Amino acid sequence: MATILITGGTVIQATGETAADVLIDGEQIAAVLAPGSTLLGHDLAAGVDRVIDAAGKYVIPGGVDAHTHMEMPFGGTEACDTFETGTRAAAWGGTTTIIDFAIQRSGEQVEDGLAQWHRKADGNCAIDYGFHQIIGGVDEQSLKAMDTLIDEGITSYKLFMAYPGVFYSDDAQVLRAMQKASELGLLTMMHAENGPAIDVLAEQLVERGKTSPYYHGIARAWQLEEEATHRAIMLADVARAPLYVVHVSAKQAVAQLAAARGEGKNVFGETCPQYLYLSLEEQLGAPGFEGAKWVCSTPLRSRAEGHQDAIWQALRGNDLQMVSTDHCPFCMKDQKELGVDDFRAIPNGIGSVEHRMNLLYQGVVTGRISRPRWVELTSTTPARMFGLYGRKGVIAPGADADVVIYDPNGHTSIGLQKTHHMNMDHSAWEGFEIDGHVDLVLSRGAVLIDDGAYVGRKGHGRYLKRDLSQYLN
Amino acid sequence: MATILITGGTVIQATGETAADVLIDGEQIAAVLAPGSTLLGHDLAAGVDRVIDAAGKYVIPGGVDAHTHMEMPFGGTEACDTFETGTRAAAWGGTTTIIDFAIQRSGEQVEDGLAQWHRKADGNCAIDYGFHQIIGGVDEQSLKAMDTLIDEGITSYKLFMAYPGVFYSDDAQVLRAMQKASELGLLTMMHAENGPAIDVLAEQLVERGKTSPYYHGIARAWQLEEEATHRAIMLADVARAPLYVVHVSAKQAVAQLAAARGEGKNVFGETCPQYLYLSLEEQLGAPGFEGAKWVCSTPLRSRAEGHQDAIWQALRGNDLQMVSTDHCPFCMKDQKELGVDDFRAIPNGIGSVEHRMNLLYQGVVTGRISRPRWVELTSTTPARMFGLYGRKGVIAPGADADVVIYDPNGHTSIGLQKTHHMNMDHSAWEGFEIDGHVDLVLSRGAVLIDDGAYVGRKGHGRYLKRDLSQYLN
Amino acid sequence: MATILITGGTVIQATGETAADVLIDGEQIAAVLAPGSTLLGHDLAAGVDRVIDAAGKYVIPGGVDAHTHMEMPFGGTEACDTFETGTRAAAWGGTTTIIDFAIQRSGEQVEDGLAQWHRKADGNCAIDYGFHQIIGGVDEQSLKAMDTLIDEGITSYKLFMAYPGVFYSDDAQVLRAMQKASELGLLTMMHAENGPAIDVLAEQLVERGKTSPYYHGIARAWQLEEEATHRAIMLADVARAPLYVVHVSAKQAVAQLAAARGEGKNVFGETCPQYLYLSLEEQLGAPGFEGAKWVCSTPLRSRAEGHQDAIWQALRGNDLQMVSTDHCPFCMKDQKELGVDDFRAIPNGIGSVEHRMNLLYQGVVTGRISRPRWVELTSTTPARMFGLYGRKGVIAPGADADVVIYDPNGHTSIGLQKTHHMNMDHSAWEGFEIDGHVDLVLSRGAVLIDDGAYVGRKGHGRYLKRDLSQYLN
Amino acid sequence: MATILITGGTVIQATGETAADVLIDGEQIAAVLAPGSTLLGHDLAAGVDRVIDAAGKYVIPGGVDAHTHMEMPFGGTEACDTFETGTRAAAWGGTTTIIDFAIQRSGEQVEDGLAQWHRKADGNCAIDYGFHQIIGGVDEQSLKAMDTLIDEGITSYKLFMAYPGVFYSDDAQVLRAMQKASELGLLTMMHAENGPAIDVLAEQLVERGKTSPYYHGIARAWQLEEEATHRAIMLADVARAPLYVVHVSAKQAVAQLAAARGEGKNVFGETCPQYLYLSLEEQLGAPGFEGAKWVCSTPLRSRAEGHQDAIWQALRGNDLQMVSTDHCPFCMKDQKELGVDDFRAIPNGIGSVEHRMNLLYQGVVTGRISRPRWVELTSTTPARMFGLYGRKGVIAPGADADVVIYDPNGHTSIGLQKTHHMNMDHSAWEGFEIDGHVDLVLSRGAVLIDDGAYVGRKGHGRYLKRDLSQYLN
Repeated sequence: MATILITGGTVIQATGETAADVLIDGEQIAAVLAPGSTLLGHDLAAGVDRVIDAAGKYVIPGGVDAHTHMEMPFGGTEACDTFETGTRAAAWGGTTTIIDFAIQRSGEQVEDGLAQWHRKADGNCAIDYGFHQIIGGVDEQSLKAMDTLIDEGITSYKLFMAYPGVFYSDDAQVLRAMQKASELGLLTMMHAENGPAIDVLAEQLVERGKTSPYYHGIARAWQLEEEATHRAIMLADVARAPLYVVHVSAKQAVAQLAAARGEGKNVFGETCPQYLYLSLEEQLGAPGFEGAKWVCSTPLRSRAEGHQDAIWQALRGNDLQMVSTDHCPFCMKDQKELGVDDFRAIPNGIGSVEHRMNLLYQGVVTGRISRPRWVELTSTTPARMFGLYGRKGVIAPGADADVVIYDPNGHTSIGLQKTHHMNMDHSAWEGFEIDGHVDLVLSRGAVLIDDGAYVGRKGHGRYLKRDLSQYLN
Repeated sequence: MATILITGGTVIQATGETAADVLIDGEQIAAVLAPGSTLLGHDLAAGVDRVIDAAGKYVIPGGVDAHTHMEMPFGGTEACDTFETGTRAAAWGGTTTIIDFAIQRSGEQVEDGLAQWHRKADGNCAIDYGFHQIIGGVDEQSLKAMDTLIDEGITSYKLFMAYPGVFYSDDAQVLRAMQKASELGLLTMMHAENGPAIDVLAEQLVERGKTSPYYHGIARAWQLEEEATHRAIMLADVARAPLYVVHVSAKQAVAQLAAARGEGKNVFGETCPQYLYLSLEEQLGAPGFEGAKWVCSTPLRSRAEGHQDAIWQALRGNDLQMVSTDHCPFCMKDQKELGVDDFRAIPNGIGSVEHRMNLLYQGVVTGRISRPRWVELTSTTPARMFGLYGRKGVIAPGADADVVIYDPNGHTSIGLQKTHHMNMDHSAWEGFEIDGHVDLVLSRGAVLIDDGAYVGRKGHGRYLKRDLSQYLN
Repeated sequence: MATILITGGTVIQATGETAADVLIDGEQIAAVLAPGSTLLGHDLAAGVDRVIDAAGKYVIPGGVDAHTHMEMPFGGTEACDTFETGTRAAAWGGTTTIIDFAIQRSGEQVEDGLAQWHRKADGNCAIDYGFHQIIGGVDEQSLKAMDTLIDEGITSYKLFMAYPGVFYSDDAQVLRAMQKASELGLLTMMHAENGPAIDVLAEQLVERGKTSPYYHGIARAWQLEEEATHRAIMLADVARAPLYVVHVSAKQAVAQLAAARGEGKNVFGETCPQYLYLSLEEQLGAPGFEGAKWVCSTPLRSRAEGHQDAIWQALRGNDLQMVSTDHCPFCMKDQKELGVDDFRAIPNGIGSVEHRMNLLYQGVVTGRISRPRWVELTSTTPARMFGLYGRKGVIAPGADADVVIYDPNGHTSIGLQKTHHMNMDHSAWEGFEIDGHVDLVLSRGAVLIDDGAYVGRKGHGRYLKRDLSQYLN
Repeated sequence: MATILITGGTVIQATGETAADVLIDGEQIAAVLAPGSTLLGHDLAAGVDRVIDAAGKYVIPGGVDAHTHMEMPFGGTEACDTFETGTRAAAWGGTTTIIDFAIQRSGEQVEDGLAQWHRKADGNCAIDYGFHQIIGGVDEQSLKAMDTLIDEGITSYKLFMAYPGVFYSDDAQVLRAMQKASELGLLTMMHAENGPAIDVLAEQLVERGKTSPYYHGIARAWQLEEEATHRAIMLADVARAPLYVVHVSAKQAVAQLAAARGEGKNVFGETCPQYLYLSLEEQLGAPGFEGAKWVCSTPLRSRAEGHQDAIWQALRGNDLQMVSTDHCPFCMKDQKELGVDDFRAIPNGIGSVEHRMNLLYQGVVTGRISRPRWVELTSTTPARMFGLYGRKGVIAPGADADVVIYDPNGHTSIGLQKTHHMNMDHSAWEGFEIDGHVDLVLSRGAVLIDDGAYVGRKGHGRYLKRDLSQYLN
């Protein structure tokens, strides 16, 4: 296989940055070297197949997006990125690993859902991928099926306190599943919103003619995220199970997580780029039906209430540990439009898998986070959290050669007509300008993005059997 | 200069561990490599001066002890480790960097104190060393002198809210110094205890005949540590200055730090091994004058109140960021004995510089912390906090070759007659057994400890000009 | 009607105490007078039917017990105090008002439940009584029935987050009921325990052979009271409804209430004597089946965890506002015995209606609370909270002449064979000794207890139509 | 002496309100009676000297203003209300008791300060008055003098953490004084601001030309009130002394008090009308030198930061217990003008003694507090807190006949030219309109205000020897 030497760059890791060269031999990183490309007198550059000049640029581990929903059925339609289009878009944006959610619903077999997800992904992905398992119907059978997950390389699973009748688990189900997870060592991921209460509010709003996308955000009040977050924490405490709360958007939910961590509990939270940049007032409240683009759950929160700033701060101080996308794209036409008369029928989801690394880098530019923290939030911690560290999330010998060359002097304009490679008819991020650029992307030593072109291939990406979480306190 | 190849070990860094070889070329690490010691067909082992077999062992960055007091005058006597004996003992224990405190007192010149410290250390140290500057007399002159510290490589300084008449700064002085530090980018270190109130309680205790070492701990009540910690946080908030609180021992002080961090403040705390293992009841309260061995400030805290467990938990959850020793040894004879009739006259200090890496590793053995966290607490974060990262605190190309080979199957018995190399007539840690062993210690490529022998030399250690803190949020 | 003059006593009110005489004319208090019994030269003592000498004694408003369950069906049996026996026992103990719970269950009509409760109580009570309404099945019909409650003199109603399949409301039902209550001005009372999670734990314990009464307390973990308390607070916040949490026993639940009150929410909590004096270890954990006497929900809490002290403190500092009994007595024979093989079948309840005033007074003796606070917790606040102030809860002209003469130099031995007048075959309070004594009890001017004898009559007690809460912030 | 019968009014007490008549015989209340004025057939109205018709009006206990500074020397001038003018103005506003501060400074004798205050007040007051003692110089002599205070009827004393060089006590002095107070049963009152830090900021502001009144508020940052409040709490905890913090204005200081109370500490706080209605931006920041009218310490706080709403909420929920005025009036001319070039030279103080009852009643009108809470905050709790309950603060037989008839249908326009009777050349409250009116004021049975006229007399007011606090938990 090929050998590559990346020279002259600044290698950024979670704890700091150093000037170093990176030698890749086949699929793995072979060495991280002092700049200069000679070792004990050997001229390494002369011996490799390709030398990549990273002078003036950052060399970072490929992004790990631990929360995507490719081809996911939702509300009578299906997320419009396939594993093919979605992972290709991810590669464009410097993400080299995704972890998607296989689905089991009430009455279905876990094994069937998982097998279906393998069929969807197998042979189609541009980058490596793993799976979490959604358990949407906790019963004797699905609890028993959890026994097999670790052997399948699935070390985390998700429950929903929202979406009654779809994915919802009541507290007895949540507790039983957490107890099982605790026994097995699985990490419980939680969609923490009080679904039954939300449905009451949503129904009342629609009855009063409040049907526009904005009211999606009103129905899903922060109180009901905060409440469910606290409840999940307490149930996890009873079950002695670690807990990972997905897509945290309310500052009060962050406070619950922080308090639990302060008591020594193994409680973690992710947020998503939309909760850092977008708001209830500006996006969800856009005129007409425009706001439908930003209908996702948890919803965008009020800027007047200060959630966005609080979420940035939580990332800085480690009250939240990582950033995923919850990539779940729906087109406006035929999809988002389903809810033109009733926000409850709008498919929930935003497409961001391509933009996460850039959007977070902009937080470096604006002084919200440091460069090492950027890498930690988007790559290192996701890898550690979900049992991929050593292979992913770090520039180190033996690790998969998933490497991104990022140019701080480049520029990226986000939007439909410009850089966007997701399979969507709009962008939730139209007009966002990034003071940096993904120049080159390697996945297990294979070049995927180079000089503004996609040179990867469908099927390069492999399924990742994951280890148990490496992040627990 | 010599080349060394460390093979077959497990390299532990702050974010995780990987099997890797480490190539050292002269004073720096030249490369971290995939195991096997060949690179592009070159047999590296064949080309180096020495190959060290680390199979089955941990390869970690040398320890950074950011809080020592060698040869420090205190209470009419002087800490009994010189830079020579103290840094040698540090090397024995796997610590390859110390940061000591140069002293200025009221009426003295900062420059003079610093020059004196250079004279004490220069040519005497076994390992590299840096300085913090104590400002014990904040006035126009010392504030002006702070301007020069960064050029001297001193990017942090310490104030005392305790010890009226010795190092004490009142709140006006604290605020002025913090404002100056904020302007310059210096990190303010704080001894946070309410000294005036402590002196009242201590005087009253002695008046009532409560003169034994135990009452040192009673006089320095946790309330007065918690109070001063909060006060320091608020003054730093007014001054917009980052804050680093030294030797945190009370769980309530931790709570103050955690709350401040939760609000997004740049507030940090260190603790020391004594606050993890020792207690008011068991050590300070030992029969007769025995407790004098453990008279230090802040004092050992009550185990019944749960401080020790809380401090471990704070280390795990990052409410405290690092572990230093506050190494300040005094012999019983002629030194601690000064306070045989009055605990106020006992010189304050415990000697631990040799044992920190081992004592913290025992926390790995007992499940208190993970291996990566061990390295983070004792090496990586101290290096980042005090502007040494890249040179120290990490196994990475370009870094100083400060490397420790640690054997998890070895054993270390701590105590005066056995392993102790500090210049003391007793050990505060007599009888502690560690399920691990420091096998080999390198400092900038030079072997200091090898096969149970000290092979370093006085004067090898160099003064480190430090950068600004790399840890600020 | 008769006139009575109470002379020479110390009148204790919620804010303080004064030496004063009390003149009763018929059913009401006519005047509170300076001691001496003359007014503008009129010798009042000469003109009344009876003069009661209260010298050296306390004159207090009759107790208001806002939480009783007379003749309540539960688990296939029925609480063994009828309105006749229960209110007579209350009178013995200085309680002159109870508020009992009329019951509606899923599928039942609110009106029917209320009518049934009127039939049970009418003509049988020794003291005045009011009703709260339990809504055990929230649906369109019961929500509509809430409209009529205020006209019926019922201004508060109770929901259960525990007891799935019996009284349980899910979060959607809770929210709908609270919204309705908010609209009407009704006060929502909440049994705050996570019933579904408790049932999981209880089932698992029984499966593992843990069937004794002690495991009732283990299954109903404090986490599940804390959780439900927080959830109730948040749902009330969404509904903009005031909230009153019944029988708070966990210190962490108190913390949730205190935090909510600190944010300005109209949130209140009651506790019961059992949570002040009794514990998981000592009572529920008594040998054999003895612990069944103390099976109630929320359960007795661990003394080692400090709940009892915390509850006392919460009463002192007004984090909890009042003390009721949750009087719900079951005999051991044929009732508690139902659960001899499975704690889940033990009827839940403790009988205390007779002892509340005495048990709380003992808190005065031991310095836990002040005398005015004693009166406030047991009489004044319950009257205010539930819309009876002015008639009950205060010694003031125009108020019902519900007055208790309490002797601080008397003594009361509690227990089955001694003073107990509840219809039970045991006492949960056997052996408790009180340094005080209820000497004389008046209800609307009628003497009920006098010189150690019951001289009241069945049917004296009248139904109280209550006003809206007078305690809301 | 005269007898008076107040008929037809609504008597408002701290716990609620009842229709009742009040009979006054000489200096005390003789009885509180059911409306109708007959008792056992006696027509009371016929037998009294005067009948006052209070139909449609409120009958409340006279206000107790526990924080005034009459004739107080400050900054080279003296507060411009004498005991004569100040107490007369108080009477106009429905306040019938003040507690003023006798002063001791460093180097002075406590006895001398107290004697001086008696000389100032004796024979000059329109209403009853008590004293707190300021200890402005804690030393052996003043600590010893504290022994005598209780005999003098002085059961509370004040320390200052602000005003270095004037009243300031350092932490050692504070602790010593609190320990002494704890031993004696005295209540410690604290001016909680970090004076040394404030002086640094103030000096820096002036150096930068920021000399206008607005910068008084900037220098006295909320952080420095919060900090000192927390410090006072911790020192009181060490001394086991109750603590009462005066003039709380920052919401963060409230949070500290609330947290301490939540832990069961005997910690209390008062606020003043200015912190409820006025702000940094609007008043202190008024154009030119106008803001000087509102220079007081603690300063007015920012409305944008929400302090005013938070203080109202704290009053509602009892995180703050009472409202005093900190009445300390200075004229603009010759007094406030001293600081026209430097805000530090502006005498600190606002005159409000006449308006407190009205300003708080306006909070009833606007729904901020209930009527009983109005009485509790302004009369009942101040009386309980400072050992006057039974005599003051309640409408009860035996209490001093300090009674106010308040007309909720009346109106009061506040301002210099209209109703103002304080000895000032301006009003801090110009333009405030109150939807209520003080109709009649009685002090120990003597009419002071009647039909819009002052009919009291200089010298009617007597010195009140106070009991120990009756409010401690």
